[in-house]
Order: sequence, then C-alpha cells, then structure tokens
Amino acid sequence: MRSAVVLLSGGLDSATVMAIAQSQGYAVHAITFDYGQRHAIEMQCAKRIAKAMGIADHRIIHIDLRAFGGSALTADIDVPKDRSLADMTAEIPVTYVPARNTIFLSFALAFAEVIGSNDIFIGVNALDYSGYPDCRPQYIKAFEEMANLATRSSVQGNALRIHTPLISMTKAEIIQTGHKLGVDYGLTVSCYDPKADGKPCGACDACQLRAKGFWEARLTDPAL
Amino acid sequence: MRSAVVLLSGGLDSATVMAIAQSQGYAVHAITFDYGQRHAIEMQCAKRIAKAMGIADHRIIHIDLRAFGGSALTADIDVPKDRSLADMTAEIPVTYVPARNTIFLSFALAFAEVIGSNDIFIGVNALDYSGYPDCRPQYIKAFEEMANLATRSSVQGNALRIHTPLISMTKAEIIQTGHKLGVDYGLTVSCYDPKADGKPCGACDACQLRAKGFWEARLTDPAL
Repeated sequence: MRSAVVLLSGGLDSATVMAIAQSQGYAVHAITFDYGQRHAIEMQCAKRIAKAMGIADHRIIHIDLRAFGGSALTADIDVPKDRSLADMTAEIPVTYVPARNTIFLSFALAFAEVIGSNDIFIGVNALDYSGYPDCRPQYIKAFEEMANLATRSSVQGNALRIHTPLISMTKAEIIQTGHKLGVDYGLTVSCYDPKADGKPCGACDACQLRAKGFWEARLTDPAL
Repeated sequence: MRSAVVLLSGGLDSATVMAIAQSQGYAVHAITFDYGQRHAIEMQCAKRIAKAMGIADHRIIHIDLRAFGGSALTADIDVPKDRSLADMTAEIPVTYVPARNTIFLSFALAFAEVIGSNDIFIGVNALDYSGYPDCRPQYIKAFEEMANLATRSSVQGNALRIHTPLISMTKAEIIQTGHKLGVDYGLTVSCYDPKADGKPCGACDACQLRAKGFWEARLTDPAL
C-alpha cells in the first residue's frame, strides 16, 4: 500500500483532502501544526478528524510562528469581519501568515522522506480565495521542483509529488466531494477567530466562505 | 541600511557567512535552530558568536526534527568516525537530516518577509562535502525560484535572493576569508558528536574536514 503525507489543519478543506487521499488508496500519515495560531481549537479538531477517519499515524508538530508575527493569526492584529467577497479577494489579507505553506510543506517533505513516501497532499485552493500567494498553482509547482532536488530520496531517483486535489474547486464542490466520501464536517472548524467556547464567529472571511459553500452545495453545516 | 537574514548554526561556515554579510554592508538578523540535534552545544556557540559580532537581532527557533528522526544527528544512529575523505563523499552520509535546509530556509523566508528583507545568507558548500543534496547550487536556485512565488513580498515585486558565498570555496578558503574578516573561530564548533565537556570528538567527518581546512590554510584552530 502506498503511503502519503496529508497536511491536516482541522478545517474543512484538509479533512476533504484526507478523504480523497484515502479514496485513492493511500495509507495516510497526517501532520498538523501547532504554530501559535489564534484559532488553536484547530488542533483538537484535527485530532478528532484523524481518529474518526482511522489515521494510524498523526503527528502534531510544534513550531512558533509567533516568534516572527506579521499576521492576524499569529500576532495582535484584528481578524477582519463582515467583509464583502470583493474586499476578501481585493488584496492579500492580514490573515496571510508569512511563508506558512512553505514551512508546512517543508516539514511534510521531511516526514515523507523518513517514512519513504513520495506523495504529499495539501488542501490549497486558488479559486474561492485567491488572496494567498502560497496557494497558487505556480507556487506549488515551484515547491515540487525544489523538493525534487532537496532530499536523499530525490537523488535516489524518487519523484516527489505535491497533490492539490482542491486547487480548482469551488467551496461548494469541495463540500460536495467530502460529503460523498463521508467526511463528518461537524468535526471541522474553519473560523479564524473562534469564540471562547470554540464556536465560530460567523463573520470572518473563513466563516463567510464556509457558509456560502454550504449554501451553494445545498447542504447544512453540521458544525453549526 | 539593507537588512539580511543569516542562518547561524554556531559552526565555522555560518560564522564566516555572517562576517561576509556584514562586510557587504548588511544589517544582519541572525536565526538559529534548536532542532533536537545531538550537538546542542551549537546553540551556545551561536549565541556567543552573535554577541561577539554585534548582532542586535538573533532569534532562536525551536523545532523538533526528532519527531521524524531519520538522521544520526536527530535519532539514535551512530555518527561515523575516522572515515577517509573518499568514504565521506562516496554517498549521502547518515548525518544528512531529511529536508533540513528546506525547513531552515523556509523559516528564514518568513523572518525575511516580516522584517522586510530581500536577502538570505546561508553557508552551504558544495565542494568540500558534496554529500548533502540540499547543499547543491541547483537546489538553492530552485528554492530561490519557489521563494519568489511564495510570499506577499514577492507578489509585490520584491525579488528575494539566497546568497551562498561559500558554495564553491574549499574549507581552507572559507577559513582564510573569515580570518581576514576577523572571525573568532575559537567561538565556533563543528563537531557532530561533541564530548560531555563540549570538546570536539576529533574523529567525525566535520572534525576531520575542519582540521584539514585549518591545515591547508596554514592556520591553527583556536577552538582546540
């Protein structure tokens, strides 16, 4: 059985990606980052999702991106609320975390090499939310090229592949895909700024895009 | 004054790189990784070097590469001793840490973006010790290309550059360069497997290459 490393955040997208990887026959090794994010409830969700989906190997990696700051998710910068879709996509949002996907994929690369896997899955999406530079197809391609020069495994002739099954899907298509694969979205969290009791704020970009996605998919969000 | 991020390990190479960056007029921001390495004395050396060279901003980043293992530096695998130069360069050594430079450079990229720097310096060397895949020029070039698609800064038109001033130098040339720039090599450590009192083992690849370098440079190693 081929193994794959899946980046699991605890959100809707990465849970769907994990189900896709499983449906393609991969033995999934999940990796979650505790990076000092404001929405630390993600970690609990990631653990619950991994358990529910029968993931035998789930690593939580502690890294402190607060050492750098520079983002509303890792520093004392307010998370924007109640923005229009036009505003969300007009520029790179303050919730962008400098080099986050590059750091996450680098750890995934190390993990893949150690377990002898050539496949990394990440739930980036370029369509619904095009503000993050490190979610674009050209970025992923460049990371893959770099990765194929970086490791002992690559020198030995193994081609590493970064799988981005969600990259051209709408949020509604992602939800429909996961729904068909049996993902329990009640276990996931998308909110950037959850309330003290862990409930979503309902107003940040992530909450709004999630609500729009469920509405367009004609499904109800089991997390609400 | 332009600022640069310099990866500082506490070893001879990175101390030299830091001196080179300073000599080129950069305000240096140093970054050191506590990654669960066997040779943790590196961190103390890095702090002493940064202080001696007047670095105002030195960040120590804690990451746990032991979570993956896969290397003699991060797992219970013996560090090879008393190998010939031919053996050292015959294959990728067990001291190779999966994706280490990719992880380090990713954090440096985040750091650079937050402080508004477009320059990262790293002391990789392809000549004296060609065993590590992530020390090769083609790898560095691929990382640079990826980095220039990864960040908000790159989207805004800033070109990030990875500087590798040591890449084609012999160890002797590195030592001579640092010597001229006033680097105190007595503060540096190169050994992969230091003794309990912090003294170098004298037999690992790093110790042997360092000794050979000083000998060829016709200088004495002040750390001995």
